Amino acid sequence: MPTSIIKIKVKPGREADFEAVLQRLIPASNANEPGILFYQGFRTGTPGEYIMLESFKDSDAHKAHTASPHFQANRPALTDCFDGSPEVQRLTDL
Amino acid sequence: MPTSIIKIKVKPGREADFEAVLQRLIPASNANEPGILFYQGFRTGTPGEYIMLESFKDSDAHKAHTASPHFQANRPALTDCFDGSPEVQRLTDL
Repeated sequence: MPTSIIKIKVKPGREADFEAVLQRLIPASNANEPGILFYQGFRTGTPGEYIMLESFKDSDAHKAHTASPHFQANRPALTDCFDGSPEVQRLTDL
Repeated sequence: MPTSIIKIKVKPGREADFEAVLQRLIPASNANEPGILFYQGFRTGTPGEYIMLESFKDSDAHKAHTASPHFQANRPALTDCFDGSPEVQRLTDL
């Protein structure tokens, strides 16, 4: 199951914009992608810092997520809030 | 949803023991706890280092997990493999 911890820093003052995009993207993803095992976003407690936890049934499900209309539609607004590149930690199944 | 990233270091040479406990605990938890949203263990790629991702519907579901017979039965064998205390990062819902 392709699973990642993604740490995202958001530009100062863009937190509300970023969260608004996630509030659209996360429910749309969970409602429309049967290959999602877990897909949620969180605050870490550090201002402007967020964690996305993503787990997909298989690599096709991961690809389907990236190609989905809701991801493609929300991606520009999401990345516009990024303060630098997200840190992606890929995990390996036991 | 109470959600945590738990980083665990395992004593050198105890990796197989640790993984064997998780191979019992994780399926038993997912099969018996309707309050689990996500509960999985992973290798990080660093020898002896593991990540548990845990997300529960609410705090009662988290308490039910800790109190469950399968958790209580496996906990001593699990903690016996720990090399120091796990690092727990608690996340906050958006």
